[in-house]
Amino acid sequence: MSISKKKMILDLDTGVDDALALAYALADPDCDLIGIIGSYGNVYVEQGVQNSLDLLALLGADDVPVYLGAQHALHVDGFKVLPVSAQIHGDNGVANLQLPTAKRGPEKQSGIDFLIEAAHKYKDQLLFVPTGPLTNLAAALKKDPTIADLIGHVTLMGGALTIPGNVSPAAEANIHQDPEAANEVFHTALPLTMVGLDVTTRTLLTKHETACWRALNTKAGTVYADLVNYYIEAYKTTNPHLHGCALHDPLAVGVAIEPALVEKIRLNLKVETTAPFEGRTIGDEARLNETNISTEVAVNVDKKAFLDKFMNRLTPLFAAH
Amino acid sequence: MSISKKKMILDLDTGVDDALALAYALADPDCDLIGIIGSYGNVYVEQGVQNSLDLLALLGADDVPVYLGAQHALHVDGFKVLPVSAQIHGDNGVANLQLPTAKRGPEKQSGIDFLIEAAHKYKDQLLFVPTGPLTNLAAALKKDPTIADLIGHVTLMGGALTIPGNVSPAAEANIHQDPEAANEVFHTALPLTMVGLDVTTRTLLTKHETACWRALNTKAGTVYADLVNYYIEAYKTTNPHLHGCALHDPLAVGVAIEPALVEKIRLNLKVETTAPFEGRTIGDEARLNETNISTEVAVNVDKKAFLDKFMNRLTPLFAAH
Repeated sequence: MSISKKKMILDLDTGVDDALALAYALADPDCDLIGIIGSYGNVYVEQGVQNSLDLLALLGADDVPVYLGAQHALHVDGFKVLPVSAQIHGDNGVANLQLPTAKRGPEKQSGIDFLIEAAHKYKDQLLFVPTGPLTNLAAALKKDPTIADLIGHVTLMGGALTIPGNVSPAAEANIHQDPEAANEVFHTALPLTMVGLDVTTRTLLTKHETACWRALNTKAGTVYADLVNYYIEAYKTTNPHLHGCALHDPLAVGVAIEPALVEKIRLNLKVETTAPFEGRTIGDEARLNETNISTEVAVNVDKKAFLDKFMNRLTPLFAAH
Repeated sequence: MSISKKKMILDLDTGVDDALALAYALADPDCDLIGIIGSYGNVYVEQGVQNSLDLLALLGADDVPVYLGAQHALHVDGFKVLPVSAQIHGDNGVANLQLPTAKRGPEKQSGIDFLIEAAHKYKDQLLFVPTGPLTNLAAALKKDPTIADLIGHVTLMGGALTIPGNVSPAAEANIHQDPEAANEVFHTALPLTMVGLDVTTRTLLTKHETACWRALNTKAGTVYADLVNYYIEAYKTTNPHLHGCALHDPLAVGVAIEPALVEKIRLNLKVETTAPFEGRTIGDEARLNETNISTEVAVNVDKKAFLDKFMNRLTPLFAAH
């Protein structure tokens, strides 16, 4: 009998790099994508859920259920997409492309209940990968604190420890959307790896790679080439020093499956919740000298190993659809 | 013929932990302390120089020359000791003790010229350990940029990368004194290790250790027990969560001699020079993907190994004087 594969749940605010994360999770032979929870951030939650459904259908994976998550941060009344998010991901999150609408709709169960149920069912086999705000995870932990000891590992895309943020000198966008939720998550015993700007701005994709996808002459290859070229063009304006687009969300998926892709330091984190440091992820000096630290922060990455894996997974998937 | 020992120059603003760094450098069998340059910070430069001279005399090392360095930061007109510095180190930097005045006075040569001369003379054998602002090092680099390629290694106490600062949520005191100087130093090719609050607030001394020194019944044992007890008392107010005093400056000396005491990450740093982030040491996102990075940041420390070395060096030195 073979050892059972890890089960992965993605928590996406489906913009362009979330679309890449979704494809990576589908294509990787070492994990089963058992569901996607929708979040707000790059887009409104309803749009993100529709994008996930449409992308799953495009990639021949409409057996994967998609759940609605929170519409906005815990401690505020609403949410508005930032102009910079629309600039980078397009108004609809998928580069303003009109994707064919999936036949399947979202599930009736809430994303938060789905996560709690999966934690109890799969326990340490469950990998949870949030690539947007941590609102859904914080809500699930609040509703059922026991899942902190059940979930196998959380690998989140968000935060910045050793370099400045991207929405302020202190803060990265995902964490900044809901600093309170992130702070609550960082104060639990969850085994957690933070994959932040520290590493995601080192793994870059260029039009060289998207040209390979376009040359496949498939629907998926064309859609993903169009998506990512839009994203690369936006990066020329927002991050001209990078000379490519950052593979934020797919790196979190890659690290969840193969932690050795990154160099990590073990550190209890906190998130500041007041200006001008609102949303800063930083070591918690009050818990610096604790001995059992469950949080790790990725501080360097084997770029070549990750990019090779990334292309070796995504290109065959796009070739087949 | 034995391999020649490393030569160390300390750059001190001699308060209590600087006094410990001075003793560590004298006591370590693997390096020769060839001189001390005075800086401002915990005290005014003249007071710091006098403290260094008096401590060297107390420890039977009045053959070590002491040089005057800068009186204030490069880009400002003056300097005033902060109330918190006087609270931690005493008004005179040495816990308001009256140390016997050394017979030897400061050297006529400037500290900056001494550093430049030593860089040319000892080249990669030279270890430079600044434990105050980086004003003297920046001035020496400005006067003779070639020393960036000559000095063996710089191991500085200052900065905070993975935890908040101590004079503001963003900034550590030494770097905050002269952010421009630190930023200039971080933009050279100097091989450099930053030993910041990230690690120095993990290496703590308590009254248990100072009681050992007092029991030696020597002049040096008594002075150092009094010095450090004063410092520990101040820490009870300023840093009650630490339950001891931080061995900031001696850790930099220890790491200069034995780099393996700390876990390091390689990262190009910059220092922000405007409020509210003034004095923050943070990775330079514009140089994140460079391949030849000469700066390392200590992010964890083998506390027990360091404390053992610290006591095994200082206690016999105090026993003999």
